Amino acid sequence: MTDLTLYSMPSSGNSYKVRLMLALLGRKVDTIDVEYGWESLARAKKEGRLPFGKAPVLDLGDGTLLPESNAILVWLGRDTRFVPSDALEQAQMLSWMFWEQNQHEGVIAVRAALLSYPHRKAQATPARLAELLESGNALLGIMEDHLRGRDWLVGDSVSLADLCLYAYTHTAETRGGFDLAPFPALRGWLERVAGLDGYVGIDA
Amino acid sequence: MTDLTLYSMPSSGNSYKVRLMLALLGRKVDTIDVEYGWESLARAKKEGRLPFGKAPVLDLGDGTLLPESNAILVWLGRDTRFVPSDALEQAQMLSWMFWEQNQHEGVIAVRAALLSYPHRKAQATPARLAELLESGNALLGIMEDHLRGRDWLVGDSVSLADLCLYAYTHTAETRGGFDLAPFPALRGWLERVAGLDGYVGIDA
Repeated sequence: MTDLTLYSMPSSGNSYKVRLMLALLGRKVDTIDVEYGWESLARAKKEGRLPFGKAPVLDLGDGTLLPESNAILVWLGRDTRFVPSDALEQAQMLSWMFWEQNQHEGVIAVRAALLSYPHRKAQATPARLAELLESGNALLGIMEDHLRGRDWLVGDSVSLADLCLYAYTHTAETRGGFDLAPFPALRGWLERVAGLDGYVGIDA
Repeated sequence: MTDLTLYSMPSSGNSYKVRLMLALLGRKVDTIDVEYGWESLARAKKEGRLPFGKAPVLDLGDGTLLPESNAILVWLGRDTRFVPSDALEQAQMLSWMFWEQNQHEGVIAVRAALLSYPHRKAQATPARLAELLESGNALLGIMEDHLRGRDWLVGDSVSLADLCLYAYTHTAETRGGFDLAPFPALRGWLERVAGLDGYVGIDA
């Protein structure tokens, strides 16, 4: 239980998901911070510690390197309250998690990245930012519609779907330049995640 | 077992994954074909049959609509030989499946889409196509490195990871304009998938 090592990018929502999950589970792991421009990132890549070239990666301590934030959540979440016992609810949880990686992250997180990272600045044209704002609002609208009258994305309790989508949604205003005022159900849901026992913020 | 309905886009690798899985399992379902520009797609969207606005969606026949190709694979794959029994191999299978949706599809499938779909043609600039070719070759290289000396992506047998990545990889040459000659291990793996009992092609 103690020999896990997390390769984590401090600025990244994908890495934050895993840090949040570990905090909610009360699990301590060694963390190696790898950030754009840092020597630690170049070294981790060079030494083959990031199988897909990206953080986060969980080193299981026996030579196994598990990449992909949402796969790490599933691995850490087995036999915990964050994975529903019902097979259909598990599939619905995964639907949201694949949607997050295929649609949500490519718009909400990308807009934040274009606005934040110096190496992405050239792509941050007004047309591209406007296009991402429009697509992002449509994606946030899908979450809003679903959350109206519900506390959590799947079933009656918090699951990995909520944790994974919280990561880039909760910084959509501060980093991505989105306005969440038109999404009251979404805002209520963000507050419920932030109120979970053991919660840590992205900058903690 | 008989009242499943699949909303499937004939031209889409994501929909093909599900059709391939059903064929390998020998399961028959009703299929509603929805294609760009077809009335059936507009109707399915209007009637709320596509929760995230995209195909494929599996209608479970009891009012439940399950979107996201890879989540549908997991749902159909439970208790079959396509999901490993070992928890770590399950997580590794999901790593490849999230990587497919987050990285591979956004490059390999997008290049094919820019070259094939009339409504994407404006984005098919030489610079964008060149950039996607370079990124795509790097992604194919990750698969090649991993498959060297292995038959399947995870463990010793075929899993959902292979089916999901097969979909857009096997048309990378014909639709995406990639050259697979430098990737012999990948080509061997494509042949192994195509040799599975019950296999159907994307145009079947």
